[in-house]
Amino acid sequence: MKQSYIIGIDGGGTKTVAAIARLDATIVAQVKAGPSNPNAVGFEQSAKVLLNLVDECCQKVGCKSNSVKKIVIGLAGAGREEDKQQLLKILKNLGGDSFVKKVILETDVRIAFEAAFPDNEAGIAVISGTGSIVMARTANQKFIRAGGWGKTLGDDGSGHAIARDAIREVLKSHEGRMVKTVLTSRLKKSFKLRSVDEIISYAAHHPIASFAPQVIEEATKGDTVAKEILMVHALALAEAVEIVRIKMQQKENIQVVCFGSLLEHRNFYSALVREIIHEMIPGVVIRKQKLSPVYGALLLARKSIN
Amino acid sequence: MKQSYIIGIDGGGTKTVAAIARLDATIVAQVKAGPSNPNAVGFEQSAKVLLNLVDECCQKVGCKSNSVKKIVIGLAGAGREEDKQQLLKILKNLGGDSFVKKVILETDVRIAFEAAFPDNEAGIAVISGTGSIVMARTANQKFIRAGGWGKTLGDDGSGHAIARDAIREVLKSHEGRMVKTVLTSRLKKSFKLRSVDEIISYAAHHPIASFAPQVIEEATKGDTVAKEILMVHALALAEAVEIVRIKMQQKENIQVVCFGSLLEHRNFYSALVREIIHEMIPGVVIRKQKLSPVYGALLLARKSIN
Repeated sequence: MKQSYIIGIDGGGTKTVAAIARLDATIVAQVKAGPSNPNAVGFEQSAKVLLNLVDECCQKVGCKSNSVKKIVIGLAGAGREEDKQQLLKILKNLGGDSFVKKVILETDVRIAFEAAFPDNEAGIAVISGTGSIVMARTANQKFIRAGGWGKTLGDDGSGHAIARDAIREVLKSHEGRMVKTVLTSRLKKSFKLRSVDEIISYAAHHPIASFAPQVIEEATKGDTVAKEILMVHALALAEAVEIVRIKMQQKENIQVVCFGSLLEHRNFYSALVREIIHEMIPGVVIRKQKLSPVYGALLLARKSIN
Repeated sequence: MKQSYIIGIDGGGTKTVAAIARLDATIVAQVKAGPSNPNAVGFEQSAKVLLNLVDECCQKVGCKSNSVKKIVIGLAGAGREEDKQQLLKILKNLGGDSFVKKVILETDVRIAFEAAFPDNEAGIAVISGTGSIVMARTANQKFIRAGGWGKTLGDDGSGHAIARDAIREVLKSHEGRMVKTVLTSRLKKSFKLRSVDEIISYAAHHPIASFAPQVIEEATKGDTVAKEILMVHALALAEAVEIVRIKMQQKENIQVVCFGSLLEHRNFYSALVREIIHEMIPGVVIRKQKLSPVYGALLLARKSIN
């Protein structure tokens, strides 16, 4: 009998990872490509990257496309229903009917959640990278979210929000509304500014979240301004966890997994977030994230077949 | 002798107004067109709108273009030096060397300031429309600014910031982090949302400042949430006024003019801003804005000739 496969894809604004696996989710091969977030690269380009990766996966294992039974794509920037439909339409145009019928389009957050809680467990995922969101699944498989409001309305606890608040403190200091801060020189170096004023037009046209790790660094060294900013955002994440916990109606043994670029490694901020969640919410158990998001996509693919 | 003219243009994101005047700034004719903010309509279109308006001005008074001695354009979205140079380049391509040599490109804020303080007086302009900024001129003609950080970093006191904070309160209420608020139904009606969640993707792709006047309306009716938001932003504007006053080194008879769509008419917010500035800063005299920004542009044109 011919071997059948499933494919999982984790698509972000920087890179895209695809894995092809047997129907039991045992990975056979893995391939990488550039960004595929449609908000960053456009819908056409996003669809092309995704289709290419599927082709490459098939080539790696030497199978034909009809051996692939399911493709789960977890894509940053696919949260909006309109955007989702538009991308599926383009995938259909480029890949054909039989291809698009196999595709399940999810958000990057959803597949990461699946990797965190692979056995349908109830649990809470706290994510902080450029953006942030808290997502929970109840014992009866209902999803609840808090935060994830985007840049305009403010993703509290996210890299963007931390960077934004740090830059605001630098500008306040520059205008004479606040004492001097070490963040000023960090900011000037970081974005190659001749004057602090230049950050205003820079921020209007470029992403700023890359400044957040430097705020974390300065907090580690003891800077009060940096520490206060991180405290505010750690509290916001903990508040979001508490709000979903209340809705989950669960009081003990609440499994929490922290991920995203700011939380997945040990640093001042990720430690602070974990500490505050522990203090604020009794009954919480913070676990490590063991599986990769692309594996979460494969798990979803496997579930959708069974 | 042939009559000579000057032209003043006030270009925004909604409309553009041009006035042609004699060299003493006596307006002879006025014409209108659509938006010319290059960030909103693109640089090519912005340049075309501006050139057309100059042509129309000349037609209105039946003069040739060489009778126009100076053109001052106060343009929203021309604050960045790079953007300014790019627009001037396109104006040169489309209008020619002799045309662009007459052009002085300023921000919309600068010409409004000139209209507020036409006689080179020291003074402070407090502006709150979609964005906000506080601009001051010292007795020895130095300009000082506070705020005006743009949407990403937050224009405290602006329509965008007020709308953003109000939407955040609605989302908090929706997530169960805050009590119910009347702003929720206002928001749903205002942006034709079926569910509150829809505001997240809406805000990521559309301007939201149009919600600010409704926050002001609800504050007028007594809503506590709306009142608190306005209080925070009125305080931020007053703080910006205080910071420029300190830098101006002036302690009494400080002339302040409030303008922009949120402040130029009498409403709950504009009254609050005036009241707090009065209370916080002794020695302030709040005046009415009497002249239009386009007239401010003409005054700058006149000054540049003399």
